Amino acid sequence: MELAIALDFQSQTPLHQQLYEALQRAILQGILPPRYRLPSTRSLAKSLGISRNTVTQSYDRLLGEGYLATVAGSGTYVSDRLPEEFLQAKAVDPPLSAMRSPHSLSEYGERLAKNELALQPEPDVAINFRYGTPNLDLFPVKLWRKLLSRHCCGGREWLDYARDFRGYAPLREAIAGYLGRSRAVKCNPEQILLTNGTQQAVNLILRVLFVRGEAIAVEDPGYLSAKRIFASYDADIIPIPVDASGLVVEKLGDREAKLVYVTPSHQFPTGAILSLSRRLALLQWAQQTGGLIIEDDYDSEFRYGERPIPALQGLNGGNSVLYIGTFSKVLFPSLRIGYLVLPEHLVEVFLRAKWLCDRQLSTLDQYVLTDFIEEGHLESHIRKMRSHYDKLRQTLVKALEEFFGDRVTIFGEKAGIHLMAKFHFPLRDEEVISRAESVGVGLMSARVHYLDACDRGEFIFGYGELSEEQIWEGIEKLAVAIHVVKVGITHLGIH
Amino acid sequence: MELAIALDFQSQTPLHQQLYEALQRAILQGILPPRYRLPSTRSLAKSLGISRNTVTQSYDRLLGEGYLATVAGSGTYVSDRLPEEFLQAKAVDPPLSAMRSPHSLSEYGERLAKNELALQPEPDVAINFRYGTPNLDLFPVKLWRKLLSRHCCGGREWLDYARDFRGYAPLREAIAGYLGRSRAVKCNPEQILLTNGTQQAVNLILRVLFVRGEAIAVEDPGYLSAKRIFASYDADIIPIPVDASGLVVEKLGDREAKLVYVTPSHQFPTGAILSLSRRLALLQWAQQTGGLIIEDDYDSEFRYGERPIPALQGLNGGNSVLYIGTFSKVLFPSLRIGYLVLPEHLVEVFLRAKWLCDRQLSTLDQYVLTDFIEEGHLESHIRKMRSHYDKLRQTLVKALEEFFGDRVTIFGEKAGIHLMAKFHFPLRDEEVISRAESVGVGLMSARVHYLDACDRGEFIFGYGELSEEQIWEGIEKLAVAIHVVKVGITHLGIH
Repeated sequence: MELAIALDFQSQTPLHQQLYEALQRAILQGILPPRYRLPSTRSLAKSLGISRNTVTQSYDRLLGEGYLATVAGSGTYVSDRLPEEFLQAKAVDPPLSAMRSPHSLSEYGERLAKNELALQPEPDVAINFRYGTPNLDLFPVKLWRKLLSRHCCGGREWLDYARDFRGYAPLREAIAGYLGRSRAVKCNPEQILLTNGTQQAVNLILRVLFVRGEAIAVEDPGYLSAKRIFASYDADIIPIPVDASGLVVEKLGDREAKLVYVTPSHQFPTGAILSLSRRLALLQWAQQTGGLIIEDDYDSEFRYGERPIPALQGLNGGNSVLYIGTFSKVLFPSLRIGYLVLPEHLVEVFLRAKWLCDRQLSTLDQYVLTDFIEEGHLESHIRKMRSHYDKLRQTLVKALEEFFGDRVTIFGEKAGIHLMAKFHFPLRDEEVISRAESVGVGLMSARVHYLDACDRGEFIFGYGELSEEQIWEGIEKLAVAIHVVKVGITHLGIH
Repeated sequence: MELAIALDFQSQTPLHQQLYEALQRAILQGILPPRYRLPSTRSLAKSLGISRNTVTQSYDRLLGEGYLATVAGSGTYVSDRLPEEFLQAKAVDPPLSAMRSPHSLSEYGERLAKNELALQPEPDVAINFRYGTPNLDLFPVKLWRKLLSRHCCGGREWLDYARDFRGYAPLREAIAGYLGRSRAVKCNPEQILLTNGTQQAVNLILRVLFVRGEAIAVEDPGYLSAKRIFASYDADIIPIPVDASGLVVEKLGDREAKLVYVTPSHQFPTGAILSLSRRLALLQWAQQTGGLIIEDDYDSEFRYGERPIPALQGLNGGNSVLYIGTFSKVLFPSLRIGYLVLPEHLVEVFLRAKWLCDRQLSTLDQYVLTDFIEEGHLESHIRKMRSHYDKLRQTLVKALEEFFGDRVTIFGEKAGIHLMAKFHFPLRDEEVISRAESVGVGLMSARVHYLDACDRGEFIFGYGELSEEQIWEGIEKLAVAIHVVKVGITHLGIH
């Protein structure tokens, strides 16, 4: 370990004095922490290009003053008992706030600096109906570890830069096969670009295709994180309403939107499944206007009792569709692998954008995921989780009906790992959330996902990571907190 | 495994016929590959919401025609011996090229689509003096696997979304400590934002700070990948010359550059180390003009015999400096962890940009790297590699001198894992490269890193991943290929 110390060989100050001051300062600032072992005088002298005697002089003075201590036969260490007066001398540099001028931001930076883009911390509650998180206790961690060990071994190919900038070819093949079988996506592996999650995929789409001043049509209500990205590009966002069959495609009319963002398998947040006739109409819209469809097929894996509707991408050969997906919810969120299925003529330019952006994904993770899919674990894990979530979903529906009766309407429970509930009582959303939090229940209003942000009494109930007991207890506590417990409904006169 | 098949319940075509056609098509297109096991008639009927009899009818016809085969007691499979005429029917869909109109790109997309941004494949040679790749055979893979296994186990926190959007806090602490000790970087862990490599860090800087029309000063010659990113943002790139002490800061004058990009530890590609007086002058320039310095401190870990010069970031409290680094070259390239040390007032907006961009890095990799640093493996690995690279470097210098004598001048050999050699003989760079390739030696001209792209006879010799034998052999072969073998110099009359 070498220490980076600046010595000025032209200075009037002797080198041993300079070195003494530099080390003292490093110790006081905690850069050299207590019990830190210093290099030997010989090696420090060598690395600084000064005489050993100079280093010894400096060390001796610091030893004498108590900054350093020696341990016989082991070396010289930073003292762990610094006199108090030394420690009070910590603020040696001018504080950062004393800087000359803050630097100007780009327009993008200015938009990000606005408060509405601040990231909110999670509430600290025992039972959190947050959405988007799968059950992680049932993830086959041992199997994943076995696959990691299999590939984290000899052979340096996995350590090196990737040769294929689209992503690891066998993984793209495995994904193409999986998407073809389960979602009727029609693509060859060369059309797949692996991304660092779907958020990167959406960003790449905007970066490569979006021209300032163009419009992007979105579902209203619709996924906030996607709209945040669109807003960060200063897009003209056109809200299109959603009903029980998903996006009301007629309302798109001949709006000149460059892009339309849809979540057809489980509309976020209402949970509606986009009907086949609407899908065909949407593709027709794209053909007629030259628009492109961003098909975020999240939650397509979790369907309960309904027959799967093929992805938009596969219904017209994929020419108007940018299909995106991720393994975050099917496997685990901290695995940073998503995918973007592109029309062939866009592959090369997206590839360059991805490369410029951050070069590549972790190779090891790609190897592991390839085996996980090819050995059939992905599909068996999805089956297992689907039946697990189905039970949770039924419990949640039952609990909501039990405790809220006709004061609740449930939407979107036929797919995914969240549903939406609309409450029929005169409480503002904030009041519901704050009462819920006071009894340890975390709840999210659907309001932030509407562009006009009205109070509608709609809440998103994510159930993926909860147990049946927690779901029941959470809904019961919620009902008590807002005084609609079954026994009390008529008693309190709420209707 | 469910199959996504679109059935039209309003159609005149019977359902069994629709299902037969859909399955036939999937088999012919390879979506259902040979030996693929189909779902049972009962489960497919259930998932499609049709009668079991309908499915049986379709299956029977496909069995009769040889598309499917049954294995007693095991189920129904796609036949692995499809009659040849079936396989010739593959092109069922209109080709993608028949699409209506290509979609227009953003200005960024248009710039990327230009040919000069095409990504070049690696040459296929036995001895490749490519730069930027460390020796991967000496990486302690077993240790890394042990750490992966330690953290890839029970406890679901690592699987979930990250709570800290800056990156895992203990890793940021470990990096702050390491940078303080080895590079005299002064920062608290809150100023560190972890990124998906340095390329993402540079992109984030441009995204958040760069305003169209502003200028970015760069070293000339300088790192092509960084300039590609600047060009992708349509920046006005100002070349500033480089000499044996690095960037010639005087030449910056009072140029109104918003940003200046420097590689002070080992200037890319010349290998010059930016002198302390130039560092102080550069900081003064930033103070006076309000400019910001992007300090890409790559190769700072590998210095041979020189005393380390503290990072620019630490010399003025870091107010004008955006310090970037990565573990790609110190550990391995496919590990996607880099860092960006920010002035305090910029942290929040960069954090939001990173979150919007791709949320987070792999948590498991961050856990592993934290232990790797905290347990001292990083610093001992760097020591080991420094002494390894030192030997390679000496061999390379010796070989170049041995085979090229006074026809070569060597630059930048005092740090890093590449050096630059200027040849003094009248051959064009392309000719040198193509002769080298013909004897299995990969070589890169420094020319692409100059903004004016003159022929200077300068080549970059990366030696990180080669052995001493390969280096010697590669230089000898190169000398033979361009007819300057020692014995032949006067004989061939080249001078």
